[in-house]
Amino acid sequence: MATIDLNSDLGESFGTYKIGNDAEILSIVTSANIACGFHAGDPMVMHKTVNDALACGCAIGAHPGMPDLVGFGRRKLEISPDEAYAMVIYQVGALSAFIKAAKGKMQHVKPHGALYNMAAKDAPLAEAIAAAVYDIDPKLILYGLAGSELIKAGEAKGLKTASEVFADRSYQKDGSLTPRKLPGAMITDEEKSLQQVLGMVKEGMVKTLDGKIIPVKADTICVHGDGAKALAFSRKIKTALEESGISVSSFK
Amino acid sequence: MATIDLNSDLGESFGTYKIGNDAEILSIVTSANIACGFHAGDPMVMHKTVNDALACGCAIGAHPGMPDLVGFGRRKLEISPDEAYAMVIYQVGALSAFIKAAKGKMQHVKPHGALYNMAAKDAPLAEAIAAAVYDIDPKLILYGLAGSELIKAGEAKGLKTASEVFADRSYQKDGSLTPRKLPGAMITDEEKSLQQVLGMVKEGMVKTLDGKIIPVKADTICVHGDGAKALAFSRKIKTALEESGISVSSFK
Amino acid sequence: MATIDLNSDLGESFGTYKIGNDAEILSIVTSANIACGFHAGDPMVMHKTVNDALACGCAIGAHPGMPDLVGFGRRKLEISPDEAYAMVIYQVGALSAFIKAAKGKMQHVKPHGALYNMAAKDAPLAEAIAAAVYDIDPKLILYGLAGSELIKAGEAKGLKTASEVFADRSYQKDGSLTPRKLPGAMITDEEKSLQQVLGMVKEGMVKTLDGKIIPVKADTICVHGDGAKALAFSRKIKTALEESGISVSSFK
Amino acid sequence: MATIDLNSDLGESFGTYKIGNDAEILSIVTSANIACGFHAGDPMVMHKTVNDALACGCAIGAHPGMPDLVGFGRRKLEISPDEAYAMVIYQVGALSAFIKAAKGKMQHVKPHGALYNMAAKDAPLAEAIAAAVYDIDPKLILYGLAGSELIKAGEAKGLKTASEVFADRSYQKDGSLTPRKLPGAMITDEEKSLQQVLGMVKEGMVKTLDGKIIPVKADTICVHGDGAKALAFSRKIKTALEESGISVSSFK
Repeated sequence: MATIDLNSDLGESFGTYKIGNDAEILSIVTSANIACGFHAGDPMVMHKTVNDALACGCAIGAHPGMPDLVGFGRRKLEISPDEAYAMVIYQVGALSAFIKAAKGKMQHVKPHGALYNMAAKDAPLAEAIAAAVYDIDPKLILYGLAGSELIKAGEAKGLKTASEVFADRSYQKDGSLTPRKLPGAMITDEEKSLQQVLGMVKEGMVKTLDGKIIPVKADTICVHGDGAKALAFSRKIKTALEESGISVSSFK
Repeated sequence: MATIDLNSDLGESFGTYKIGNDAEILSIVTSANIACGFHAGDPMVMHKTVNDALACGCAIGAHPGMPDLVGFGRRKLEISPDEAYAMVIYQVGALSAFIKAAKGKMQHVKPHGALYNMAAKDAPLAEAIAAAVYDIDPKLILYGLAGSELIKAGEAKGLKTASEVFADRSYQKDGSLTPRKLPGAMITDEEKSLQQVLGMVKEGMVKTLDGKIIPVKADTICVHGDGAKALAFSRKIKTALEESGISVSSFK
Repeated sequence: MATIDLNSDLGESFGTYKIGNDAEILSIVTSANIACGFHAGDPMVMHKTVNDALACGCAIGAHPGMPDLVGFGRRKLEISPDEAYAMVIYQVGALSAFIKAAKGKMQHVKPHGALYNMAAKDAPLAEAIAAAVYDIDPKLILYGLAGSELIKAGEAKGLKTASEVFADRSYQKDGSLTPRKLPGAMITDEEKSLQQVLGMVKEGMVKTLDGKIIPVKADTICVHGDGAKALAFSRKIKTALEESGISVSSFK
Repeated sequence: MATIDLNSDLGESFGTYKIGNDAEILSIVTSANIACGFHAGDPMVMHKTVNDALACGCAIGAHPGMPDLVGFGRRKLEISPDEAYAMVIYQVGALSAFIKAAKGKMQHVKPHGALYNMAAKDAPLAEAIAAAVYDIDPKLILYGLAGSELIKAGEAKGLKTASEVFADRSYQKDGSLTPRKLPGAMITDEEKSLQQVLGMVKEGMVKTLDGKIIPVKADTICVHGDGAKALAFSRKIKTALEESGISVSSFK
């Protein structure tokens, strides 16, 4: 039986600022990527989010990002591989202490935003991130875009990896995501979106924006919890997967 | 034979900004308190400092502080015990990941500046810090001002503690340090300073500012490496201790 | 005819994080206190908020706070008068440039949170803030708690001041606000709240928590826009004032 | 008689962290670019630096940078033109308030590091920066790399501009600086460096790395004060210029 993980980014509130619907999304996903205080999150938020994720049985991962709170870690910042290594060690270490204090276990690491996108294409950066994850704990699973340099670097390092696919993004013939600026980048038709997800998980195939069928590895699907619509669609994806006989679970 | 630990605050540079003489002070002290990125330090500095401390055989401790880089963590900030707990978990966790990546071991935690001073007098804050240290690893040693609430909280929690004394500060009859604003707070005569240190370590006694002899527990002495004079005096303290037949070593 | 100003804190969003209902509250108040990037707000938010406030005809003021985004500027931070002076100059200057770029005019300065509360009681801090405001522009109006050290310092410096009163807080017999931790600090009965406002504005009197009638100077009332209830009550206050024949307007 | 301005970056200390030799460099240069708290500097440092620059008769400019203290504003950050506009307004406004409080006048704006380099090549970014400077005060002078998009944008906007040249960097045949990563980027021979400066100022010509003579506009030369060697060389440049009959002065 096919198995798939559902992951979502959580713990992105900061001080007085609240964002997301963490309680609701925690009841849907199997893996939670928790922000580590650089692009979002703060020590109090991390403490609460770790405890909430453990309470609902979700697997927990660190979600390190760029040191850019005002840009939410989405703006490319020209960092060296050494800087990437150190900022991943720092953030994953900080989150791991909350997990340890709560007697839980960290399952994975998934870089956020610009760090995720840069590591998809920049091999030295990807290798530095993979090395940081490995040096903290070689049993951690590295999440990255399916087919990316980050997945390759994780495998080369000897880490277990999880190839991530997207329900609401179209693919290009080389297997990359259509850049957000291009027409057709976002899939807004929910039915089409569900078909893409089922095809990727069951057949390992996806139809590209220009109609070609290409292979794609799907270990985990990223879903969102910001807004009632996103929450409802996340539930729909889970239901559709389960009704197709696919087991939805984390890698624990 | 009496034993004493010499500790110093290290890794306080930040980005382009350099502070301290870490290489030199590492050759003198037995325990290094490494800043964790809130009041000083950054991921790159932490990475380098941890590796340097391990290379020279120093015991390593985390030196968490207030989130106040511009004030170097020296300004009192009115935080709740919950906030103190979370910020200690975060910072100690971040440092511990660098130590783990370097295959080293963390020996202790010593709060910095305002956090140290507030925890010396505020029992609930001290208890929150002790709980954070315990929850990360009950074998960590908690450093605090001799006779302080922080030492009491550590002992109550079941942690091993290290009572810290100062060579260059005068004491009051209740065992507290003379506040810096009062005359006589700083001991500027090096000979007097050395006598105070030897008396505290060998006899467990100190002469207060108004001439009374009171007991004081001395497990570790804080020395400084900022400036040629401070470095030279740190070396003098170590030599004087060793010449008095006292073993200078960490708690490893 | 009696006149009163209604002010509210605005522009407190930060990056992706949204807070408050600025568009709605701008249609109610006569003066807008705009956050300056230390406790809340960022350059993009300040730009938009200044333009929105000018578009609706509101008077604009700077709302400088402590450098404590995660604590929203509400935590006391032990700063020196020199630090207070410099941080007020910095923040008011930053906001004034957005106003200048939009060809508007700054009416006032109102410190935020812990800075406001500390300046209400700490004369040297209050004097430093008043000096900073004066040095930027002696025609700026300094907002502060009625009867506070900040108002006294502003008057001593030669600034025009605006004594601020609160609709939802009870007063003590010395004219200070009942601390939030004490029972009865918040007035939750809206009718009682409206009576307090009308009494303060029309008679210059307020009934204290223990039933005494004392004088209070009311130049401006602080109202809130976070949440539907707060917005509705802000409208009620304005309507009640106007129906009592009081003119609601800024100091322009 | 030919005239040239000598400028240097100042006020780059932060809190406890000291950098540069501001007092010495202020005795050499005619224009001071003062950091504004994003990549370096803080309100206390800005206050002191503005007063020191005014005391020695230097012209003052704002030196806005990326919000990246740990990277000292040297790392490219992918910002939009709107973000650039807002961050320049913010920083220039903050500095201008210190100048106003000290009854001085701002002469110019020179972007720092990555912001300067990005604005040299990215026309929309350059236009946003020029618009921000113009909207604050159309009489401000915009400093930028000679031949850059920033200079073009300033001129198109109607601002007075100052084309900046470098003593210690080699030029390429298109007039751009040789990237630091390439061999020959830095001119380490002081005599060669002086000849380049004199040639640029007196003839308006520079010999490129591959030996071609090309025209270059030189209104201001950037010199450095970090380290005894840099200071001494800055003095040598000034002396050489004056001995060649060139007047060294700001644009006041």
